[in-house]
Order: sequence, then structure tokens, then C-alpha cells
Amino acid sequence: MIANYKSEFLNYLEKRVQVQEPKNLYEPIAYILSLGGKKLRPILTLMTVDIFGGDYKKALDAALAVEVFHNFTLVHDDIMDAAPLRRGSHTVHEKWDVNTGILSGDAMLILAYQYLENYDATTFKKLISLFSKTALEVCEGQQLDIDFETRNDVTIEEYIKMISLKTSVLVAAALKMGAVIANASEENIKLIYDYGLNLGIAFQLQDDYLDAFGNPETFGKQVGGDIIENKKTYLYIKAVELGSESEKEILGNLFNVGSYEHEQKIEKVKSIFDSSGAAEKTKEAIKSYTQKAFDVLESILIASEKKQLLREFGEGLMNRNV
Amino acid sequence: MIANYKSEFLNYLEKRVQVQEPKNLYEPIAYILSLGGKKLRPILTLMTVDIFGGDYKKALDAALAVEVFHNFTLVHDDIMDAAPLRRGSHTVHEKWDVNTGILSGDAMLILAYQYLENYDATTFKKLISLFSKTALEVCEGQQLDIDFETRNDVTIEEYIKMISLKTSVLVAAALKMGAVIANASEENIKLIYDYGLNLGIAFQLQDDYLDAFGNPETFGKQVGGDIIENKKTYLYIKAVELGSESEKEILGNLFNVGSYEHEQKIEKVKSIFDSSGAAEKTKEAIKSYTQKAFDVLESILIASEKKQLLREFGEGLMNRNV
Repeated sequence: MIANYKSEFLNYLEKRVQVQEPKNLYEPIAYILSLGGKKLRPILTLMTVDIFGGDYKKALDAALAVEVFHNFTLVHDDIMDAAPLRRGSHTVHEKWDVNTGILSGDAMLILAYQYLENYDATTFKKLISLFSKTALEVCEGQQLDIDFETRNDVTIEEYIKMISLKTSVLVAAALKMGAVIANASEENIKLIYDYGLNLGIAFQLQDDYLDAFGNPETFGKQVGGDIIENKKTYLYIKAVELGSESEKEILGNLFNVGSYEHEQKIEKVKSIFDSSGAAEKTKEAIKSYTQKAFDVLESILIASEKKQLLREFGEGLMNRNV
Repeated sequence: MIANYKSEFLNYLEKRVQVQEPKNLYEPIAYILSLGGKKLRPILTLMTVDIFGGDYKKALDAALAVEVFHNFTLVHDDIMDAAPLRRGSHTVHEKWDVNTGILSGDAMLILAYQYLENYDATTFKKLISLFSKTALEVCEGQQLDIDFETRNDVTIEEYIKMISLKTSVLVAAALKMGAVIANASEENIKLIYDYGLNLGIAFQLQDDYLDAFGNPETFGKQVGGDIIENKKTYLYIKAVELGSESEKEILGNLFNVGSYEHEQKIEKVKSIFDSSGAAEKTKEAIKSYTQKAFDVLESILIASEKKQLLREFGEGLMNRNV
């Protein structure tokens, strides 16, 4: 079923995203969208329409808007992070240049808005308002992420806010768009958004956890990448909060002073994440946000079998034992 | 009267554009919008509502969207051009950094969409669709401008297309938005757009002309700037088209080979612009597009005195004898 949504979406994407003139503007867009990825967000949009009794085909444009917007953020974020690779291939600014990345990204943001033009005026206004609010929040999340790089006093609360903005609001909006298109009740629209928000936070925290403790064979990204880049993730902030004086000192040195051999640094940091109790606390937080998401899902006023699909999708996402 | 529109608009802008958290995202936005500029586009939006019998105050949000969008293009274009100065002050990427310029620019594009949310659903959809179409065309114009830098065979037709997309469509859209808000007839909406398109082209060609032949005392920008940067403007393309073999050879050398002393280069190029007949042809083209704009204006089905304001504005713009 989920595979169905994905293949329908990919067919639609291929049909709608065509390279036109000027080629140097549109080719990078087709390129980044062809690099694969799980297509989680558009699948969630389509699935939600079905769940609320609508026709998922009506949500293909909204799903496309969400996916193109997501890829716009990847293109611009990759420039800001000077990242050479994305999904195993060259990033746009690496394959072309920074200016191409900026301009093609801008065009993608506009295209995302344009894909929503097939909806009637009332639905259109609801979708666009949600879309703009979400897009601006994602920018704010990205700014907080940048700001946090040079701060040493980021709290868990601030960190959760940052990942909510940078990651979760788009997952939540992807679901909400489906609910809006299916004409779900205001109450259900609110609940499905909250489900997405909590699931998105759980997912990002799990990503933080797996980045350190995942299996290199199956994780898909370089294990320890966050540690090498001195990223102050949930694990790090918790370790500073809970660690002994000596653990904090070692961690501070590893993150702020000089350059250590990667393998050794990763091992030492992971051992402090463990001994300080930060790893355990992170696992608890993942469980807690996942549980919150499922509790919200249970309270949605539709037949239980309809929720099954979303429950399974959430479980599948959170049971990545990698 | 025009001064009134401007001061009303500036008051509104100051009220609506507030620095919020995260400051590093919103401060650059307030900064670029505070740098001055003629505010041509928002004035045109407000004026058009009045002309079609509406209340210009209803168009303040649309005018704001147009101005914030225009400034978004300036922030990103300045990064692409590595420009240190804008309106005599540091550009955003110079005062902060490139990443700040990219992200604040992105947020401005989204904010521009958000400012339109005060309109009812039907007007909203019309305005947003026009806005997205225009925004994408501006990106295409910018891409063509970049593409032309490395081409030696750009035709006059292609050049006019590029400046139409990069500059004129936004002027035309600024006018059209006012007409849409004032509930003008479809026919008049189309005509006012054409007026803007032709006036925008005339204005850009005049800018090309003044960049070479303007009075340094009053032009406001460095005279000869385009020549120093080897920009293939209307003047250059015409000179290559009309010049003798020897004129073309000298021009080719000046634009493509080595580095010449600026003053000398500017003088030589200007003299070929003159002797080849390119300067004359450019003046003719400016007159022709201006005339086309005023002809369209005359055909608009409203009382003649109502058009007076737009005629005066256009004349004021095109009679810059600098």
C-alpha cells in the first residue's frame, strides 16, 4: 500500500517536473528530485487523504508541493553546510556552482507554491497559508540551528524547539494538507497535525541516536557524523546536563579543542553518552514522543481501522533497528 | 500625490516589518528594506487601485508583497554578483555573510506570499497565481542574464526577452495587482499589464543608455559601470550588429581581451557606440517602447483624467535627463 503511494507519486512527479528553458535553471531541479530518498512527506499527504475518506489522487499536487519544498531546503542547506554529497550524489552547488544552487532553489520554492494552483480558491487559501507558515518556520529552525553552532548553553527545550521547526512542522503540515484536501473536521485536522509534530520530533531524536549508535552496515549515513562535526544534538546536551565534572571536561575538550583522530573521538564521545546516562535519556525521549504521537492518533475521531495505516507507517518509521 | 503614496507605504512597511526571533534571520530583512530606493513598484500598485476607482489602502499588503519580493531578488542577486554595495550601503552578504543572505532572502520570498493573506479567497488566488508566475519569470530572467555572460551571439530579441523577464514583468505585475484589487475589468487588467511591460522595457533600456551616456553628477550610479563589467547591453549588441569590421574588432578586444584602464576603455567603447549608430538606435528603441506604453494606456477604458496620474508617472520616469 505504502509502496503504491510512492510509485504513484513518483509517476506524477516525473510527469509534472519537466526541464524547460532556461535549462540551467530547471536541470538542477530535475536532478535533485531524481536522487531518490524515502519520499516520506508526500506519502504522508496521500495517505492522510485516504484515511479521511478522500481520494488520494486529489492530493498529488499538494504532495508534490511538499516534496519540492523539502528539496528546496536541501539545496540551500547544502550550500550553507558546504556539503559535497546528498543521497550519495553530488549536491547541486557541487555539480554546478553556488549561484546555480541559490537560483534553482529559489525557483523550487516558487514552483512548490504553483503546484497548489489546481485547488479551488477556498482550499487554495488554506493550503497556501499553512504552506507559508510552515516554510517560514523551517527557515527559523535553520537559523536556530546555525545560531546554536556558536553557543554552548543550548537547553533541551531550545533544542526540541529547533528540531520542531526545522523538521517536524513540515511532517505535520504534510499530514494536515491531506486532511484539508479530504475536508476533515477542524478537530481532526488539529489532531493529525499534532500527530505529525510528535512523530517528527521522535524521528529526529532517533536520527540523533542512530547517528552515534546505529549500525554502520545499515544506517545509510556515516555513523558518528554528528560527533565529527561537533553537533550539539540531544545526546550531547543531555550528556553535558547529566555528566560528572570529569565527563563534562572530556566532552568539552573533544568538541571544542583541537582535532582528534575521528575513530578515537567517536568512541570516547559515545562512551560518555553511555556512562552519563544521556543515551538512555535519549531513548526514553524517543519513546515518549512516539507514544505521544500514537496517543494523539488514537484520539482522532475516525474508525480504528482507518488509523491502522498511519499507525503502521509510524511504527515502521520508529522501529528502524539500525 | 506620488509623494503621498510613498510616505503611506513607508509607514505601512515600518509597521508590518518588525524584527522578531530569531534576530539573525529577521534583522537583515529589516536592514535591506530600510536602505531607501525609489519604491517605484509599490507606488504603482497603490496608484493603480486609485485609478480604477478602488481604495488604495486596500492595496498596501499587495504593495508590501511586491516590494519585499523585489528586495529578496536584490539580496540573492547581490550574492550571485558578489556585489559589495547596494544603495550606497553594504549588501546583506557583505554586512553579515553569504549564508545569512541566502536564508534571509528565502524568508523574504515566503513573507511576500504571507502579506497577501489578508485578501479574500478569490482575490487571494488571483494575486498569488500572478505573483508566482511573475516570481518564476524573474528567476528565468536572472538565469538568462547569467547565461548571456558567457555567450557572444545574444540577439536583440533575446536581450529584450531577458530584460522583460528580469525587470518588466514585476513592474507589470505591480500594476496588475492594483487593478485586480480594484476589481477592474479583465480587458483593463490586461491593458495595464501591457503598459507596465512596455514601460519596464523602456526604463531598462534607458538605464543601459544612461549607464554609458548619463551625467556622472546626477546618474546616481557609476557611469560606465556596464562597460567596465563587459555587460552585453542593448548598446553593445546593437554596436556589434551595426558596426564596421574594424569597430567590431576593437569592441571585441575591449570586451574580451585583457584589462584596459577604465577611463580609456569607457571612452573608446562610448565612441564606438556613437559612431556605429548603436546609441541612436537605443534612443529610438527607448522612444518606441515608451510610445507603445502610452498608446496602451490611452486604450484603457477609463476616464482620461484618471489616466493622467499614470501618464505623469511614466513621463517622469522616462524624462530623467541625466
